[in-house]
Amino acid sequence: MARILITSGPTRQYIDAVRYLTNASSGRMGRGLALAALELGHEVTVVTGPVEVEYPEGCRVVPVVSTEEMLEAATAEFELCDGLIGAAAPCDYRPVRIEPGKIAKTGEPLELRLVETADVVATLGAKKGGRWVVGFALESEDHRLRALAKLERKHCDLMVSNGVAAMNSLENEVEVLTPDGQVVGQISGPKDEVARGILAVIAERLIR
Amino acid sequence: MARILITSGPTRQYIDAVRYLTNASSGRMGRGLALAALELGHEVTVVTGPVEVEYPEGCRVVPVVSTEEMLEAATAEFELCDGLIGAAAPCDYRPVRIEPGKIAKTGEPLELRLVETADVVATLGAKKGGRWVVGFALESEDHRLRALAKLERKHCDLMVSNGVAAMNSLENEVEVLTPDGQVVGQISGPKDEVARGILAVIAERLIR
Repeated sequence: MARILITSGPTRQYIDAVRYLTNASSGRMGRGLALAALELGHEVTVVTGPVEVEYPEGCRVVPVVSTEEMLEAATAEFELCDGLIGAAAPCDYRPVRIEPGKIAKTGEPLELRLVETADVVATLGAKKGGRWVVGFALESEDHRLRALAKLERKHCDLMVSNGVAAMNSLENEVEVLTPDGQVVGQISGPKDEVARGILAVIAERLIR
Repeated sequence: MARILITSGPTRQYIDAVRYLTNASSGRMGRGLALAALELGHEVTVVTGPVEVEYPEGCRVVPVVSTEEMLEAATAEFELCDGLIGAAAPCDYRPVRIEPGKIAKTGEPLELRLVETADVVATLGAKKGGRWVVGFALESEDHRLRALAKLERKHCDLMVSNGVAAMNSLENEVEVLTPDGQVVGQISGPKDEVARGILAVIAERLIR
């Protein structure tokens, strides 16, 4: 039995009072992982961005909006957990400045200067100590190579690699990679089934 | 009995294969307006951006993603209608260039050059002929003044003015303004009730 932290869903980075940058992550993969982890008897906490899906009863849900809030909440929760599954798709750019009102249109172009947000999985991975970290990599090309580079940079014990088609879809097709580049799982199907497959790999390799 | 076109929900302007600019419009006001119009015996077509709400049975729903798609679909549907209620919150800026893949993070700031999208209500209003047009104005300050300016610029017959708090909320508080600046309705409550009030004003003033 492990205490598992799952991050899930997108985050939003507001540029003014109304408009924001985000992505189409639905939270379905995170919900599937929570369900699969609960089925195996683990304790589950989900830190989630704004989504319409409902997480299973029996897990603790911490709702957040921005990537900064997700990092703060996940950092606090990770203290109490044995491992992290970073299934969220945090918005990874934020405007340098957030306008307090609604930017009025002027007819002129709007120059938006964006900087990278902190990487939630990399930040937690860097101070994981004896805990395990499983990351997700969503790539439009060179999936395996880029996923392995992310695994290393984010101090992950396993990396789940999937394509852009996974986003806001009911199905998924993933590879699970180890730090030495082995493919220890190739799973496709409905997201709940894929989640069970990923949890099985985690149980075998990371949870003693 | 009138044939009414309702635009509803947000739109998305993608900056690459994954990330997009949008807003938190839920489509609930549009759904309420569709319901209220159907209750009064009108024919209803809804052109909607990506939302989770379900529109009432009995209306025709045309789903779109971007503001360009909303304008194209609404232009085609408006040909067949007697009036337009523009309740959507189309994303009003788009990147000059959409990257085909997922922009890889480099650690450097990302400069995004945005230009205004075409204004759906203003475009249809400019060629409305004998048809009527009702707009919505969402303002963070100077509500009434800015709403009247929009009414004129967008060739509307009525303008519904509401504040930023309306967005993704279950309730709303609106003023209905005429071209000569009269307030002919002040309605607050659940969005379905507010929608009935707006339809009553439209029926009295615009539908013969």
